[in-house]
Amino acid sequence: MTITRMINGVDVGRLTETIDAIKHDPEIATFRFRASNHWDSGGHNMTTIHDFFGAKQNVDHRHDFHISADEPDMLLGNDQGANPVELALSALASCLTTTLVYHAAARGVTVRAVESELEGDLDLRGFLGMSDTVRCGYKNIGVKMRVDADASQEILDELIELAQKHSPVFDIISNPVNVMVTGEPMVASTH
Amino acid sequence: MTITRMINGVDVGRLTETIDAIKHDPEIATFRFRASNHWDSGGHNMTTIHDFFGAKQNVDHRHDFHISADEPDMLLGNDQGANPVELALSALASCLTTTLVYHAAARGVTVRAVESELEGDLDLRGFLGMSDTVRCGYKNIGVKMRVDADASQEILDELIELAQKHSPVFDIISNPVNVMVTGEPMVASTH
Repeated sequence: MTITRMINGVDVGRLTETIDAIKHDPEIATFRFRASNHWDSGGHNMTTIHDFFGAKQNVDHRHDFHISADEPDMLLGNDQGANPVELALSALASCLTTTLVYHAAARGVTVRAVESELEGDLDLRGFLGMSDTVRCGYKNIGVKMRVDADASQEILDELIELAQKHSPVFDIISNPVNVMVTGEPMVASTH
Repeated sequence: MTITRMINGVDVGRLTETIDAIKHDPEIATFRFRASNHWDSGGHNMTTIHDFFGAKQNVDHRHDFHISADEPDMLLGNDQGANPVELALSALASCLTTTLVYHAAARGVTVRAVESELEGDLDLRGFLGMSDTVRCGYKNIGVKMRVDADASQEILDELIELAQKHSPVFDIISNPVNVMVTGEPMVASTH
């Protein structure tokens, strides 16, 4: 019998079961996430998230998610969506938050609220190809998290540490990831 | 007089003006992008993109952009949005696409269509804190881009190279970024 024990909206019973299952069969932990993107015009394009592979099976999301990206007028777009580097901040923000909340739940710490503010500094000369010494991406990113939880300052500090230690997107941004890009001409009939 | 010359939906006249302005005053290229995030419950949280700083001024987006993140049922969420690592793929996809399109426009290459598919491999044991040797983020990411353009195979290959060389999010994911996270207790009245 599974006992449902919800902490912070996370089913801690299922979380424990998942960890036990992975201990017995690590292949369950192998995930492959997917996205497809379709360019519209200028800085405007749309990403669709449809399915992923995990726990040895392909899983469709309940419905497709569409993420519109564009550039503001200052960057020659029509401002129909957050721009790609803003989307990167959203990925980081959501990941740190989810990681904090899940790890708090696993430790039995009730969290009442989490808010964060992020800033990333970027020199446009990289993107524009105006300099070989200026990097294209963020020089640095600052994240301020505010947490309201049933916990001492020491536990709060530990949760902030755990969020960074175990957040996939924090790792992806803080450390190098091998990205392999291949390009091919489009077959006329596919678009 | 500014001559409007649109290629791929990008105003190449303004692009040239921007580059010239930055050559004269590199501080114009200093940008700071921002995001704020508010946790809802479990794996569900919402990022808001409101404004940014660039070209020596603070600029509000035409309206706020809201990006919902959640986890699928298999990862103990309610599937109300793409999850954070899927959002990271969307940031990468949109950035490679925009970079390719803008650099094609700057070179006078007309692009008719760009599509891409991305996959990222991730071992959940990192996120779950089950291993100190398994990384939390993607082990690797594969990107397949398909481009339909008025260009030879050689030019297409060059555009794919330029997309990687100058994409801010490709840089952010491929190379380390310093991320500084600070945490503080929330003042009760702020939420």
